[in-house]
Amino acid sequence: MIKAGILGSTGYAGSELVRLLTQHPQVEIAFVDSRSYGGVPFSQVYPHLRGFVDRECSHLDYKDPTGFEGIDVLFCALPHGLTQEVVAEAMKSSVRIVDLSADFRLADPAVFEEWYATPHVAPEALSQAVYGLPEVHRQDIAAARLVANPGCYPTSIILALYPLLKDGLISGKELIADSASGVSGAGRSLSDGNLYSQVQENFSAYKVGSHRHTPEIEQELSLLAGEKVTLQFTPHLAPMARGILSTIYAKNTGGATRSDLENIYRKYYEAEPFLRLLPEGVFPKTKEVAGTNLVDISFVVDERTGNLILLSAIDNLIKGAAGQAVQNMNLMFGFDETEGLRLMPQWP
Amino acid sequence: MIKAGILGSTGYAGSELVRLLTQHPQVEIAFVDSRSYGGVPFSQVYPHLRGFVDRECSHLDYKDPTGFEGIDVLFCALPHGLTQEVVAEAMKSSVRIVDLSADFRLADPAVFEEWYATPHVAPEALSQAVYGLPEVHRQDIAAARLVANPGCYPTSIILALYPLLKDGLISGKELIADSASGVSGAGRSLSDGNLYSQVQENFSAYKVGSHRHTPEIEQELSLLAGEKVTLQFTPHLAPMARGILSTIYAKNTGGATRSDLENIYRKYYEAEPFLRLLPEGVFPKTKEVAGTNLVDISFVVDERTGNLILLSAIDNLIKGAAGQAVQNMNLMFGFDETEGLRLMPQWP
Amino acid sequence: MIKAGILGSTGYAGSELVRLLTQHPQVEIAFVDSRSYGGVPFSQVYPHLRGFVDRECSHLDYKDPTGFEGIDVLFCALPHGLTQEVVAEAMKSSVRIVDLSADFRLADPAVFEEWYATPHVAPEALSQAVYGLPEVHRQDIAAARLVANPGCYPTSIILALYPLLKDGLISGKELIADSASGVSGAGRSLSDGNLYSQVQENFSAYKVGSHRHTPEIEQELSLLAGEKVTLQFTPHLAPMARGILSTIYAKNTGGATRSDLENIYRKYYEAEPFLRLLPEGVFPKTKEVAGTNLVDISFVVDERTGNLILLSAIDNLIKGAAGQAVQNMNLMFGFDETEGLRLMPQWP
Amino acid sequence: MIKAGILGSTGYAGSELVRLLTQHPQVEIAFVDSRSYGGVPFSQVYPHLRGFVDRECSHLDYKDPTGFEGIDVLFCALPHGLTQEVVAEAMKSSVRIVDLSADFRLADPAVFEEWYATPHVAPEALSQAVYGLPEVHRQDIAAARLVANPGCYPTSIILALYPLLKDGLISGKELIADSASGVSGAGRSLSDGNLYSQVQENFSAYKVGSHRHTPEIEQELSLLAGEKVTLQFTPHLAPMARGILSTIYAKNTGGATRSDLENIYRKYYEAEPFLRLLPEGVFPKTKEVAGTNLVDISFVVDERTGNLILLSAIDNLIKGAAGQAVQNMNLMFGFDETEGLRLMPQWP
Repeated sequence: MIKAGILGSTGYAGSELVRLLTQHPQVEIAFVDSRSYGGVPFSQVYPHLRGFVDRECSHLDYKDPTGFEGIDVLFCALPHGLTQEVVAEAMKSSVRIVDLSADFRLADPAVFEEWYATPHVAPEALSQAVYGLPEVHRQDIAAARLVANPGCYPTSIILALYPLLKDGLISGKELIADSASGVSGAGRSLSDGNLYSQVQENFSAYKVGSHRHTPEIEQELSLLAGEKVTLQFTPHLAPMARGILSTIYAKNTGGATRSDLENIYRKYYEAEPFLRLLPEGVFPKTKEVAGTNLVDISFVVDERTGNLILLSAIDNLIKGAAGQAVQNMNLMFGFDETEGLRLMPQWP
Repeated sequence: MIKAGILGSTGYAGSELVRLLTQHPQVEIAFVDSRSYGGVPFSQVYPHLRGFVDRECSHLDYKDPTGFEGIDVLFCALPHGLTQEVVAEAMKSSVRIVDLSADFRLADPAVFEEWYATPHVAPEALSQAVYGLPEVHRQDIAAARLVANPGCYPTSIILALYPLLKDGLISGKELIADSASGVSGAGRSLSDGNLYSQVQENFSAYKVGSHRHTPEIEQELSLLAGEKVTLQFTPHLAPMARGILSTIYAKNTGGATRSDLENIYRKYYEAEPFLRLLPEGVFPKTKEVAGTNLVDISFVVDERTGNLILLSAIDNLIKGAAGQAVQNMNLMFGFDETEGLRLMPQWP
Repeated sequence: MIKAGILGSTGYAGSELVRLLTQHPQVEIAFVDSRSYGGVPFSQVYPHLRGFVDRECSHLDYKDPTGFEGIDVLFCALPHGLTQEVVAEAMKSSVRIVDLSADFRLADPAVFEEWYATPHVAPEALSQAVYGLPEVHRQDIAAARLVANPGCYPTSIILALYPLLKDGLISGKELIADSASGVSGAGRSLSDGNLYSQVQENFSAYKVGSHRHTPEIEQELSLLAGEKVTLQFTPHLAPMARGILSTIYAKNTGGATRSDLENIYRKYYEAEPFLRLLPEGVFPKTKEVAGTNLVDISFVVDERTGNLILLSAIDNLIKGAAGQAVQNMNLMFGFDETEGLRLMPQWP
Repeated sequence: MIKAGILGSTGYAGSELVRLLTQHPQVEIAFVDSRSYGGVPFSQVYPHLRGFVDRECSHLDYKDPTGFEGIDVLFCALPHGLTQEVVAEAMKSSVRIVDLSADFRLADPAVFEEWYATPHVAPEALSQAVYGLPEVHRQDIAAARLVANPGCYPTSIILALYPLLKDGLISGKELIADSASGVSGAGRSLSDGNLYSQVQENFSAYKVGSHRHTPEIEQELSLLAGEKVTLQFTPHLAPMARGILSTIYAKNTGGATRSDLENIYRKYYEAEPFLRLLPEGVFPKTKEVAGTNLVDISFVVDERTGNLILLSAIDNLIKGAAGQAVQNMNLMFGFDETEGLRLMPQWP
């Protein structure tokens, strides 16, 4: 049994963490912290959890690392920017950290500054961070002091490409990723774009060519490809609450067949507890993984065009955020990797 | 560990049963039967369960009760009408039965014939059936050979009224229940009214004054009130997949106060594992119970009008169908009543 | 050709007014005013109208009635409270006014104070206001200086009851109105309850027994019934953008038949351009009137319970707000009542 | 005033045609034909049009061309396959035809056979067909006997690429089009995939690399590019009723700037009544064109990747079907091209 603290517990990712950890048999939650709702019962902020999580939200002084002393793991689900200082402070204690923000995902502070238009203020902590995608970095995660939990889009895109790049089946040239996400990805913030009346019956692209998940994906793909990868990434907003589907285009320069790809995916993913490789002609649907830590993947070898089309679906708040954070924690503390995450999708 | 068989496993209620029982630690599923998909892998019919329920659907000969001999409990989620014969046959074996259809809910065959325009063909089995609403009939259910699992609307309406009628706080006169349901209540059948394009952005009433859940609710309310209750019941279809909200109007003839009602609800429901009584001014939301066996209840004492307004929310496929069936099974076999049902709502 | 000014043009009701008046052949829009977006092109606030309404929003000094001098009609779609002062000022000019707020709907200032917890500050203007429900007050509207445009719920409820109360078929005792609305009724304000993630897959009641449309409905029903009517009114929020459905319960004390009701409805509504009386067994659906000024009505005579159930559907932003405002303007200026409002529903 | 007949009037595209033509001042509808609902009042099939289109559906003998003799224009919204014979028969009369099926869009019968796995049975009529995209083929349409109304996806994709290919700004190599559509594109057919419970909260790709709109788009793009174009096209299903958004990727081999593209788009589209070119940083949203014949277009020149990303949004049932058919008819009969199509989007 370990003790966990959660900062930023009242955002959507944070509240999913609270829910998942409440059901985790080896975790005791020490505090659910919230800058906005300190002193308010958690189940008043999220009434669906009435009777399950009625404790009050704390509001810790982030600058005082003694606040983290009694706990084993700190989940940090704070906005970008604020996170750097908090994590740098927390690193002074002995707590291990899973950070759900983007602040520790980009290994190179220069790349961070390029995309976030501000220097990184905790480069030392950054140098210790491990990118928390278990299927790719499992062993490093297990040993990590600080895990940078991947973004939702990156999770869906990297996992579709990982085996193919790793085995050199495709090059990292001219990759295109076209993704659609439910609106929960934008959090619970009160913005016009999050209103029901703006989202329903509406589908649109946003931040075309400029989304901040781009360098994170490129960093990981470049590591896998062994060369600098430049990705064209277009996120879209779909009229739904949860889920991400990514449709990825790569050149089939080596003339790989369906069977080649099946073998490679099987080699990498057959033993993975959360990956489902779909049969030919069956494509992932966001609703079939919603509420779970699963990743559904399929692909098409289009001989007519010479392209490979890869498709993957995840729940953006679970495998794309809170579930992956728990998976990372499981690895860090030697628990069964699926503990607290054996979630079965429901329908409809 | 008991063995369970499921008839009608590929409807929405049936597939939820499959999902819940798969996760139940004391149940082994013996077969998932389907008239439409015999021989087809279950996860092909419901791809969200790929990797969880890949077994083939059986297609048993319902007229041969030996097919049920190895099992302890039979869940019957077949359409009305067909069910009577199947249950009558199954009663010849020693299996215990939870029937999710409406065929064994009305104790009086004459009432059945009045509302279904056809005589009941299994009156002997009917005479043994217990109405499976655990909060009301817990002890009878535990001993029952055949449990008639309540309808979704009746569950939401009876549970809101039960303590008040039982304690004589209100009379059964002039009750009105106005309910809204998600479209999954109509099942997976290919009807025009179930199409996305017909349901989205649409709200309407249906079967006004003639819905077949009416006599079922009246039967149970009459038992509680000790007099014949006549209910005005209006179901509505809301543009959502899951959930029922019932808004119920009763005369506050005795001049009860908020405090009176709180005491009575607490008396009956404080120890109930699935009932949540909401504080003053907070009203149930279907999404806050979705995916769970919970019932959220609140009420308003309107002194201006002399009415009581009771509100309750459930998930129509869980507490309104499959979850309640599992709860009944737990009672019948002496398991913890919440086994397999400790489902926490998720948000959003 | 008349000149119209619109205050509060960037709310949902205001922007619908802009859209409708832009298409009205006898109206020239003099200004689209907005407290929040003064100086911003209207089509930047509402990009769907790019190319149609690109003019800049004005931001008039409401205390200066000379600002209204060049115009014939002023539409006021401001929040409650603020409206009273603005209308009182505007009444000093010669402009005729259609006010979409609740501030001039309650004839009795004492009732206003009771429900709004603040005294009415423009009682003189109030005394001149006509309740703008054309089907009921057509002639008074035509002559009015100031028209108080009805609320959305009241429109749907009063029109269902009007013929029956007017002809004394039912008494005003023990009326219950249970309504469901799309979220656009709450406007474009940035509140948590308006977020997509809170609204989708969710159905709930709100302000049970305390909604401020209650006294407005009671006032009009009392006038029709010739006695004080007390209404039990429960509004619900449905997961959709537009539409209101009201389900209304009345005692059939006089034993009226279906044929009686059909005759009465026909007598009152056969010549009404926006009323559609549905045949037996067909119930109104919000989507079938969405985008139009139509009101669909049907009813059930339930002999089993002795109740009448009346159902009506409108588009809350059109017949429930902007469309009705245009209809009132048409009456005030002697235009064809349907001018600018011959909107045909679309499907799906 | 011309007389129009509509075959297949009770599909979604057909019923939109009925609605638009009913409002068209220069068209009289001679018949609304339906194989499924012959003899049934149209407003019983589509109750939203009660009071607007109450006439009975006809059920003509398609093999008897005399049935078309009194009419000037025949709209044919029948399923693929059946259409060929009907059009071939109708061509024997003097009626002019707008066909909404795919049967006359592919000029080369061999390409048709390749994608539809059956020979074309009306090659003579096919040789006379004009591809009905007014912005590209306006003059040919005006003179055409038979117009093949484009598919919904092709309309959105071709119009985004047309100016760039026509002016040689980009080559036709390595084009990728990634589109998302509302479910109304699949029609009103009773298939499992069209059910509300399957569509809501779900986003998925389908027919990846094999959608039959591919050769139609390639045909038109090849004409514009002056070389054979091969397109990678991936359609997706979004949880909404209406709308298509296409996101298109092209190599910016010539190093065009934003200003270059703006000039080219303006040159081709400035005078187009239904095209709206959005300013930099603003991307099309399906809801902003829903219910109209509009096409919203924007683009990004991504210097980082060397790609152009083009985005376009249409209403799949209007500019993607019925509206474009009316636009074609307007051209064929010398009416103002926008007659009956001056539809303003509504919000929300």
